[in-house]
Amino acid sequence: MAGNSFGQLFRITTAGESHGPGNVVIIDGVPPGIPLSEADFERDLSRRRPGQSKIVTQRNESDTPEILSGVFEGKTTGTSLAILIRNQDQRSRDYGDIAEKYRPGHADFGFDAKYGLRDYRGGGRSSARETSVRVAAGVVAKKIIADAFGGQVLSYVVQVGSIKANIPDPAAVTLDDIETLPNGEPNIVRCPDVVAAEKMIELINEMRLAGDSIGGAAEIVATGIPAGLGEPVFDKIKADLGKALFTLPAVLGVEYGIGFGCVTMRGSEHNDIFVPASDSAVDRNAAEFVESKRPGISTETNRHGGILGGITTGQPIVLRAAVKPTSSLPIEQRTVTSNAEPTTIQTKGRHDPCLLPRFIPMAEAMVAIVLADHWLRWKAQCR
Amino acid sequence: MAGNSFGQLFRITTAGESHGPGNVVIIDGVPPGIPLSEADFERDLSRRRPGQSKIVTQRNESDTPEILSGVFEGKTTGTSLAILIRNQDQRSRDYGDIAEKYRPGHADFGFDAKYGLRDYRGGGRSSARETSVRVAAGVVAKKIIADAFGGQVLSYVVQVGSIKANIPDPAAVTLDDIETLPNGEPNIVRCPDVVAAEKMIELINEMRLAGDSIGGAAEIVATGIPAGLGEPVFDKIKADLGKALFTLPAVLGVEYGIGFGCVTMRGSEHNDIFVPASDSAVDRNAAEFVESKRPGISTETNRHGGILGGITTGQPIVLRAAVKPTSSLPIEQRTVTSNAEPTTIQTKGRHDPCLLPRFIPMAEAMVAIVLADHWLRWKAQCR
Amino acid sequence: MAGNSFGQLFRITTAGESHGPGNVVIIDGVPPGIPLSEADFERDLSRRRPGQSKIVTQRNESDTPEILSGVFEGKTTGTSLAILIRNQDQRSRDYGDIAEKYRPGHADFGFDAKYGLRDYRGGGRSSARETSVRVAAGVVAKKIIADAFGGQVLSYVVQVGSIKANIPDPAAVTLDDIETLPNGEPNIVRCPDVVAAEKMIELINEMRLAGDSIGGAAEIVATGIPAGLGEPVFDKIKADLGKALFTLPAVLGVEYGIGFGCVTMRGSEHNDIFVPASDSAVDRNAAEFVESKRPGISTETNRHGGILGGITTGQPIVLRAAVKPTSSLPIEQRTVTSNAEPTTIQTKGRHDPCLLPRFIPMAEAMVAIVLADHWLRWKAQCR
Amino acid sequence: MAGNSFGQLFRITTAGESHGPGNVVIIDGVPPGIPLSEADFERDLSRRRPGQSKIVTQRNESDTPEILSGVFEGKTTGTSLAILIRNQDQRSRDYGDIAEKYRPGHADFGFDAKYGLRDYRGGGRSSARETSVRVAAGVVAKKIIADAFGGQVLSYVVQVGSIKANIPDPAAVTLDDIETLPNGEPNIVRCPDVVAAEKMIELINEMRLAGDSIGGAAEIVATGIPAGLGEPVFDKIKADLGKALFTLPAVLGVEYGIGFGCVTMRGSEHNDIFVPASDSAVDRNAAEFVESKRPGISTETNRHGGILGGITTGQPIVLRAAVKPTSSLPIEQRTVTSNAEPTTIQTKGRHDPCLLPRFIPMAEAMVAIVLADHWLRWKAQCR
Repeated sequence: MAGNSFGQLFRITTAGESHGPGNVVIIDGVPPGIPLSEADFERDLSRRRPGQSKIVTQRNESDTPEILSGVFEGKTTGTSLAILIRNQDQRSRDYGDIAEKYRPGHADFGFDAKYGLRDYRGGGRSSARETSVRVAAGVVAKKIIADAFGGQVLSYVVQVGSIKANIPDPAAVTLDDIETLPNGEPNIVRCPDVVAAEKMIELINEMRLAGDSIGGAAEIVATGIPAGLGEPVFDKIKADLGKALFTLPAVLGVEYGIGFGCVTMRGSEHNDIFVPASDSAVDRNAAEFVESKRPGISTETNRHGGILGGITTGQPIVLRAAVKPTSSLPIEQRTVTSNAEPTTIQTKGRHDPCLLPRFIPMAEAMVAIVLADHWLRWKAQCR
Repeated sequence: MAGNSFGQLFRITTAGESHGPGNVVIIDGVPPGIPLSEADFERDLSRRRPGQSKIVTQRNESDTPEILSGVFEGKTTGTSLAILIRNQDQRSRDYGDIAEKYRPGHADFGFDAKYGLRDYRGGGRSSARETSVRVAAGVVAKKIIADAFGGQVLSYVVQVGSIKANIPDPAAVTLDDIETLPNGEPNIVRCPDVVAAEKMIELINEMRLAGDSIGGAAEIVATGIPAGLGEPVFDKIKADLGKALFTLPAVLGVEYGIGFGCVTMRGSEHNDIFVPASDSAVDRNAAEFVESKRPGISTETNRHGGILGGITTGQPIVLRAAVKPTSSLPIEQRTVTSNAEPTTIQTKGRHDPCLLPRFIPMAEAMVAIVLADHWLRWKAQCR
Repeated sequence: MAGNSFGQLFRITTAGESHGPGNVVIIDGVPPGIPLSEADFERDLSRRRPGQSKIVTQRNESDTPEILSGVFEGKTTGTSLAILIRNQDQRSRDYGDIAEKYRPGHADFGFDAKYGLRDYRGGGRSSARETSVRVAAGVVAKKIIADAFGGQVLSYVVQVGSIKANIPDPAAVTLDDIETLPNGEPNIVRCPDVVAAEKMIELINEMRLAGDSIGGAAEIVATGIPAGLGEPVFDKIKADLGKALFTLPAVLGVEYGIGFGCVTMRGSEHNDIFVPASDSAVDRNAAEFVESKRPGISTETNRHGGILGGITTGQPIVLRAAVKPTSSLPIEQRTVTSNAEPTTIQTKGRHDPCLLPRFIPMAEAMVAIVLADHWLRWKAQCR
Repeated sequence: MAGNSFGQLFRITTAGESHGPGNVVIIDGVPPGIPLSEADFERDLSRRRPGQSKIVTQRNESDTPEILSGVFEGKTTGTSLAILIRNQDQRSRDYGDIAEKYRPGHADFGFDAKYGLRDYRGGGRSSARETSVRVAAGVVAKKIIADAFGGQVLSYVVQVGSIKANIPDPAAVTLDDIETLPNGEPNIVRCPDVVAAEKMIELINEMRLAGDSIGGAAEIVATGIPAGLGEPVFDKIKADLGKALFTLPAVLGVEYGIGFGCVTMRGSEHNDIFVPASDSAVDRNAAEFVESKRPGISTETNRHGGILGGITTGQPIVLRAAVKPTSSLPIEQRTVTSNAEPTTIQTKGRHDPCLLPRFIPMAEAMVAIVLADHWLRWKAQCR
């Protein structure tokens, strides 16, 4: 029931399945006059694309977007903006196995229980292909927040299996740190800690060879975000960001700021102290840009992750998501048929041995969409 | 912008501040014919009420609900149901301090940045008093899911500071385990592990005496939930539950099932194996009640927390929330005035040294509201 | 299902019945900093109130509003604003008749068919008492559009039975013309054509004495509205205004501009010609106030009623609503019982012999609410 | 701001412009298991298509739909259903005229005032081409209400200029009456009164030759609709239907039942008397199908148009819409440039001399969409 839309003022609605003709997104609420062309989508779509490196699925998709509406003479018109990405590599093969058996860890069983039938080809609507158009929508959202207040959203891998990255200052990480190694080669795992990155890649390769998969965690950082975004009760920005990340496949946990680390802390050691802005290295330009009525105030530390009471404080917004290991496995797993008869299943062919490298652009997109939405909401009510 | 509403078909809209006349909720979408009277709210409201024990705030509020509409001759009519809870103990006192200073860890600064002004009396809209009417709405939601399929939602404390409870089977915990000690006295910390409970109470008391506070974690379990609730993309039930918990004050993290534990796991050890229902102790009556088209299937384990691909599987839904230590502290903290001048602040008087005991009914309410909403959504589309 | 809310950014949610404790509205999206007190509601509430003159129902209600939240130190805070109006004159009497019989022209039968039960006391939720809190919300909306761009919404009676008013220029009508006769006495029928007004009152009185009722039509005019409000497709301002008026009880038709008169016209005589603004008497200050990018353009005539393609043109918005004769009649009418047995019914006591005089403030409120909503929407996307 | 979506549970979101790549609709909330293929759209799309007869625009579009998602093995899956209709006959020509000049009666000026720019090619988003995908969505809605309770929606022309049709019983009109003449030839004006139809066609032809256009009115009738659909306050079914029709281009008035005719009536002559169902010819099977709790009750007459208090009564729903004469005219009209300089404009080439023949399927689609939506809402709350 309208479960295919997300956002209130900057609102995306998606359709499409893994092995159907393609995926489409309609974006509503885009401000008019923003320069936009198909080329703008290239960078983020290629970061999400299958086949981009040896450690991701080898399905071959160019993910070429077609703007169907909402752009005229190179600028957004303010009317609904539709983007279509056609599927190309829907291998014709025998689906008998997944048609009749429930893949462990997948939504197959839930679809049947809910709808009484399902599009079993490649997971249908619950395929990660659906996220391609979300990433496209995220590109538009990123443009909006960059134009409005210099906001930027970046994400990177902080853990794969037991290998943890050391990221001293999330707000200092650059897109280049995430995407490129010091030697100029692509950072295919998207972890800015180069030493950890190497080990992560090794571990993922091991999984690939073993026909297994491995979990991990991503961190998302939004910088340049003015204080005052978010609503005090239900549409807290932490609630909307939390929902946004949980809409992504395989996310089992979300935390912001100190996160679960708060459980063992005392209030006196947890609270971030407010200080005059000059006492802090944190850039307050963003808030000043929107003529915040309370300039010049910062916090000494950022355990709160840029959000207090559901409203941004002007500090960097920091979130983390736990991503489970890929459920589809080439090795044999026990399961049942749709008639509840015990059997086994192997997911043949293409799969991601670790979801994290391709998760990064999806997470950025969803966070940017929430921020663009709340920016428009702030303008509506408070400007 | 409509940030005071939550839910799509079972939809609550709230208003009210800490020190204004009171709080009100309008509940839309309530099915007609459900028996309801003011007495039904007593249990859960008293579990949330200030002053209920020595380890919570001593503000004196009876939290007596008045049903303003939507009930006739003891039954819901199907039209909008409004419940008003008046404030009683708004102590007249000098607010000068919090009017001019930003309390660390609070939304004060964000309110000013967002709106340019704020109701500084007791935190205004960001006070926990706002949750009183959510708990009332939760009572209605609990009735709906109990009537429809025998669904039940319970929550309890699993950690305070470093003290962890041992809960062997979340689905086996009863309301009595949560609320009452074996000796018949009230379990004021709401942790069913009695040994841990005693230590938690001790720790919270220590904090109270020290003028400090302590964080903790709560677990929420929903049992008797049929398979097939939730939407595959944006309104995944994990996304809506995640948002629901993040709308509660002080929540910094949410995880379901194995949660952040998935990060270090391999797919082969993480996936829950589907089995014929007779292979499992899990009760499938709920799903059968709604004539699920795939009866007789269960999972061997429940690392997935009752949700796969955003849709319920018929297993118990298990979530956890990390709750930060209370920000208001009687001890002195550094901060700044609204003019960015350094100063100090002490929050005098009543505060919760640990938020967890009163968090429990709030968490139950929000989870029940999401489940009632998705139940109505399922009925609309799939029945 | 959320059928008790109206508006997208300026959003009202109502609850309450005719003979319950009272009616309440929660208004979401109110910009912060607007001066507001209970006194502001007095004028419009008294225009809607029963018992205000001899030609309306004599139910005795003071309609005193209580602001429950959202206002602090005399200003709106930006958080949800709740207003409660308690019922006072719920006469205790025997409802047996309407409990068991369906009043012709009423929603009674529909309620039973929909919900399987109904609050039969005075019509329950379908009573005109529900509109009291809409009128209160309209006061807030009127303040928003007046502050933002000098917008004003007025309504008046243009027809009762066959008596038609002559209103040469809708945009020139003042509140005083509507509310007060040249001799200083109240214009109890709210028709600015004094000659027609006198005849209308006479006719309504006749109906009252005959135990019958009479239909009529109201016109609503919004002036000072900038060009550019409204959305091009589904949320055309004409669509949202049309819905707004149809939400009011007893409205059977809505037209704007030339309305049904367009049916017999040719395009060449219907189109309003665009002219430089100086060619027109129409005030364009409003549009200039919001820095319209196309100043200085007007239309020679206003058959289009201020809206083209769903978007305002800066000309006065003009709508009309057809209001049916009151269905409740003191004279005997044939009907059936809830068991389909033929019977007769008389609605004893208090009724409006013509709905129009009290319809006026309701219509103004609903139109103002739509305009405030679209103003916020415009700010969000286009400012 | 989400102005491109319509409906709450059965929700459509559209994108596309007159001269862009095409138009797309995403339909959310479709029940699973409904047989659907591209062929199902053919009939209604061909009724809306340009070039279908000599009295409509000669733009050449095949309006071939492509189902992008939501259908698997010939049945709806319950997930979002996307339909794409590509534009074909976007004649390359000089738009200089409409790029710089405001066409009288069009949204051009409003677009510029709102967004500061516009897609001037053929009216962009305000083109009637946008309605092609609404008609496609209407086909799905018609299937839902036909399957659920045998509901049917038909529309036909009742007036063109001064020529009025005589339709003794709206509920007796068949699709064949609307589409085909007694001699088997197509009824190109879609008026079931054959004598009037002939005169209407003659008048429209006259207009075409004169380079002018003419207004008209359409009636829409929904039969087989159970009692009990619609919400009592804001989402009255008359309000949602009213909005639905006003979203269509060129509609200046909407009335239901007796409509504006109520203005001159007394209550005693207006009220429809409730009678046992056997006293009435009206078919009550529909209501019985959904196990209405109040079977066997009808009304003697249907001045109320099938809706009382916003809720359906089980009688046929009857509405009428006033449609203005086409604004685009081949003959010269005065106007201004975007710089407010007086000039003239001629809309060359293809235009509809009367909008009514193609309006019919659009009106049916919008009414069916509202009824499908309210059917799902009823199921969610009341079943």
